[in-house]
Amino acid sequence: MKEKKLTTSVFALGGLGEVGKNMYVIKNDKEIIIIDAGVMFPKSDLPGVDYVIQDITYLKENEDKIVGLFITHGHEDHIGGIPFLLGSVKIPKIYTSKIANDLIIKKLIDRDVRYDNMVVFDENSEFKFSTMSVEFIRISHSIPDSYAIVIHTPQGTIMETGDFKFDLTPIGPMSDIHKMARLGEKGVKLLLSESTNALSPGFSKSESCVDESIEAIFTRYSSNRIILATFASNIYRIKHIVETCREHGRKIVTFGRSMESAKDIALKNDLITDKSIFIEANEAKNLKKNEICILCTGSQGEPLAALSRIAAGTHKQITLLPDDIVIFSSNPIPGNASAVNRVINKLYLKGVKVVTNTEISDIHASGHATQEELKLMLRLIKPEYFMPIHGEYRMLKQHKNLAVACDVDEDKIFILKNGESIDLTNEGIVKSKTYQAGDVYVDGSRVGSIGSVVLKDRKLMSKDGILVAILNLDVNKKELLIHPNVTTRGFILVNENANLIFSISKRIETIVKKYFQANAKYNYLDLKNQIILELNSYIVEITGRRPIILPVIMEVK
Amino acid sequence: MKEKKLTTSVFALGGLGEVGKNMYVIKNDKEIIIIDAGVMFPKSDLPGVDYVIQDITYLKENEDKIVGLFITHGHEDHIGGIPFLLGSVKIPKIYTSKIANDLIIKKLIDRDVRYDNMVVFDENSEFKFSTMSVEFIRISHSIPDSYAIVIHTPQGTIMETGDFKFDLTPIGPMSDIHKMARLGEKGVKLLLSESTNALSPGFSKSESCVDESIEAIFTRYSSNRIILATFASNIYRIKHIVETCREHGRKIVTFGRSMESAKDIALKNDLITDKSIFIEANEAKNLKKNEICILCTGSQGEPLAALSRIAAGTHKQITLLPDDIVIFSSNPIPGNASAVNRVINKLYLKGVKVVTNTEISDIHASGHATQEELKLMLRLIKPEYFMPIHGEYRMLKQHKNLAVACDVDEDKIFILKNGESIDLTNEGIVKSKTYQAGDVYVDGSRVGSIGSVVLKDRKLMSKDGILVAILNLDVNKKELLIHPNVTTRGFILVNENANLIFSISKRIETIVKKYFQANAKYNYLDLKNQIILELNSYIVEITGRRPIILPVIMEVK
Repeated sequence: MKEKKLTTSVFALGGLGEVGKNMYVIKNDKEIIIIDAGVMFPKSDLPGVDYVIQDITYLKENEDKIVGLFITHGHEDHIGGIPFLLGSVKIPKIYTSKIANDLIIKKLIDRDVRYDNMVVFDENSEFKFSTMSVEFIRISHSIPDSYAIVIHTPQGTIMETGDFKFDLTPIGPMSDIHKMARLGEKGVKLLLSESTNALSPGFSKSESCVDESIEAIFTRYSSNRIILATFASNIYRIKHIVETCREHGRKIVTFGRSMESAKDIALKNDLITDKSIFIEANEAKNLKKNEICILCTGSQGEPLAALSRIAAGTHKQITLLPDDIVIFSSNPIPGNASAVNRVINKLYLKGVKVVTNTEISDIHASGHATQEELKLMLRLIKPEYFMPIHGEYRMLKQHKNLAVACDVDEDKIFILKNGESIDLTNEGIVKSKTYQAGDVYVDGSRVGSIGSVVLKDRKLMSKDGILVAILNLDVNKKELLIHPNVTTRGFILVNENANLIFSISKRIETIVKKYFQANAKYNYLDLKNQIILELNSYIVEITGRRPIILPVIMEVK
Repeated sequence: MKEKKLTTSVFALGGLGEVGKNMYVIKNDKEIIIIDAGVMFPKSDLPGVDYVIQDITYLKENEDKIVGLFITHGHEDHIGGIPFLLGSVKIPKIYTSKIANDLIIKKLIDRDVRYDNMVVFDENSEFKFSTMSVEFIRISHSIPDSYAIVIHTPQGTIMETGDFKFDLTPIGPMSDIHKMARLGEKGVKLLLSESTNALSPGFSKSESCVDESIEAIFTRYSSNRIILATFASNIYRIKHIVETCREHGRKIVTFGRSMESAKDIALKNDLITDKSIFIEANEAKNLKKNEICILCTGSQGEPLAALSRIAAGTHKQITLLPDDIVIFSSNPIPGNASAVNRVINKLYLKGVKVVTNTEISDIHASGHATQEELKLMLRLIKPEYFMPIHGEYRMLKQHKNLAVACDVDEDKIFILKNGESIDLTNEGIVKSKTYQAGDVYVDGSRVGSIGSVVLKDRKLMSKDGILVAILNLDVNKKELLIHPNVTTRGFILVNENANLIFSISKRIETIVKKYFQANAKYNYLDLKNQIILELNSYIVEITGRRPIILPVIMEVK
């Protein structure tokens, strides 16, 4: 803490002007602290794009200074990018709470990434580095074990709230308002606070209200089978669903991979203690319908999730009964509304009763602070400087208004874009240089392609749009079944460039032919990379642009 | 603080099971601390009854132990009873904030009560007595200078919140959440917290929202004369009305006695600094209608208040114009809705535009904490024991539920009635004896009658109902113009006891005749007391009951 000459810089590699792919950097010339490494789910249906992650060029180029990655909580938009980050950048330690630790380890195992430097912290932990030290404040959110991160720098204390709400009657432990008040009295130089619900007035609903509503629905429909879809990561919600089931004499069958992991993690961490309430699908056959609750994924209408398959009648283990009750204990995340409606319509067609947040408002509670809570955070912490994070521009802007109303000087508030930085000097905080940042599209199902596709393409390509090439490949005959379908976003207008699109499609056919001439055995990644590399050169040559190229190979065997 | 053997007792002489006449007592065998001395306005239209106050027998009998009366804030239901209290009980000192001090002094002058022992406190004050000490926490409420009171006793700390809300963007200073958090961390044995809005979910609206709404109405009706009725005691509201008027180039004429005092107190305490914006009614004649804002009392439809007289066309200084805008920056207090509607109907009949909280929800903000704020208080203070105060039974009950949800042990919560006490022992807090408490009806316009009527009648009489005798007296001729009109509530049914009522009326005529035979000069109080005394004996004799007797003498000269 003696190094008074070191300037501390703060910037985001993701999370500003968007909801997702959070990554914040606190650094000086000697040490770099990273907070979170999330993914974002692409807004439109881009075939082949599973995730959007950060451009991490800066971290790659400065990896010897990184002291650690600190994780606020275990949601995908805060941990989903870790496998990709570890694939490119040397991270000496990942500091995380218990539940986030378990979720990260599961994720790394799934993706076959080895990493042995996980450090689990709690509210009493403190980590001292040579120029900075880090401690943690317990906060409430829609996943257990969420924390705000406090970084003591030579220029003063920085607090990053993580995602939070002030649930005053939570199911789990409460936000530590007393520690916040103490910190605020000692003095905080800079607050970074999340902005997701900055546009919503009032004080958000407590998770306890959801508990009461679910209890009421179980009581009302005591003779029906209940199918309940919710966010798998909301383990406290699942905990009270388990308790409601026990009171109503129901056993629980879980469907969906993330729901099963959530169950495992909840049992492992003693958040749920009654293992016997969970049964396998085949055991449910011996029970009456009012002795069963099916707990499943798919509350966002995800086409491949358990609920969507149940609704479509394509689920292997369960067929809907006309008097089933299907509960969505969730709100559609913006962008998912139409997918959710599709599933609801299918459910209605099967004749079942559907209960959503529209009919019963207390069936879901947001995990994010609304205006009065954001103001309470600002009042407790009393920061000298403020930087709204984790939100689209209008949310950051509204959060700024709230901060001004809470007596933060307007000229001490920074609304930044990803990459834009501020410097903490001994004179105050000033806007500073801009670091490389941007969107990187990832074909998440093929993690092996990250090295070749993602890190090569990056921001440059995303600037010129995306070109998606869909190939129907007969793997045995080693030939395309139909002409490659080529479509683009942000590159050229397809309608006005039919000839160019046609020539690209022809070019792909040539590349595929050439590939099978050179390779006796078909390998998905090889062919894909071949297409990207050759098509890239071809397109740069004739258009001067570098769209990101996403081949989607549909394999027919 | 050494006297560990002293037991501390806590009870209310008013404020439990009702909204009004607040008075809480913290005492041990050596010292008595009183918090607040309010009035309650009678719920039904009882002719002759202006106020309801506490039965203060206990204080009278123990007046040598009283160390002082502590005032949380300057609202009538917390200070209105002071003149009556001082008339009966020796109070060595009244401790109060600046604004409450000014309001109390004004009230005492109006009622011709001399009192020279006012002590003004602020958030830094501390008063040490031989067994207890008292300090204060700034809180937000709908009148400036409101405080919670903290009493350190030999058995631990007691906090009484006063009336409060957690306005995070108030017009004046904010509730001191950091001091509350510190106190909570040090440990509070017993919290007494107000329950007025315990039935309302969420977090109450900030006074800043009202500011924005009033600004919007002034902008919309920029060419009309504006008449605005609000609570005179809400000096911050008046402050931003003044600022809005200045921005819109309007001068302010105040109508109504309490509005004029509020203006004087605001100017005296520098809450409003621009004296020149206020003009006299006759100066307004030289201004255009869009250069005038009339700020008046009567937002509760009080028949004699300025707005009611304006609406009825009986106000001497102002006649409504067809394009006037009348704004109610208020909510009708329960019980006043029909009176408010009567005024609104009269205003509509005159053709003016009326703006109320029904059309524009942000035109008034409550001064009382709703559920999330009550929970925040419970969470910040973390009391071991809890006693909800200031509210009807259902409010106290709901406040108890909130406390249980906030982790206060259910068997450490006490819902008491006025008079019921709890004892703080070294082992814990237990229910204890019941002190004399009850409603005392006051004919407030005649403060001199307090000694003879109020203190004599008290609880005993209120148990047997009320008998009102209305006399039309020709003062010059010294005779009644018509037979006395006798009506009762809670004593006997008038319809079924016509003979008794008739005989009482006759008896009053006899008493009046006797009075004028004995007295050459008519004296209101003397006659009144004569009627009470003689009628009381007569009624006890023939019915065995002791209704409170309220003679209302209408004097014709």
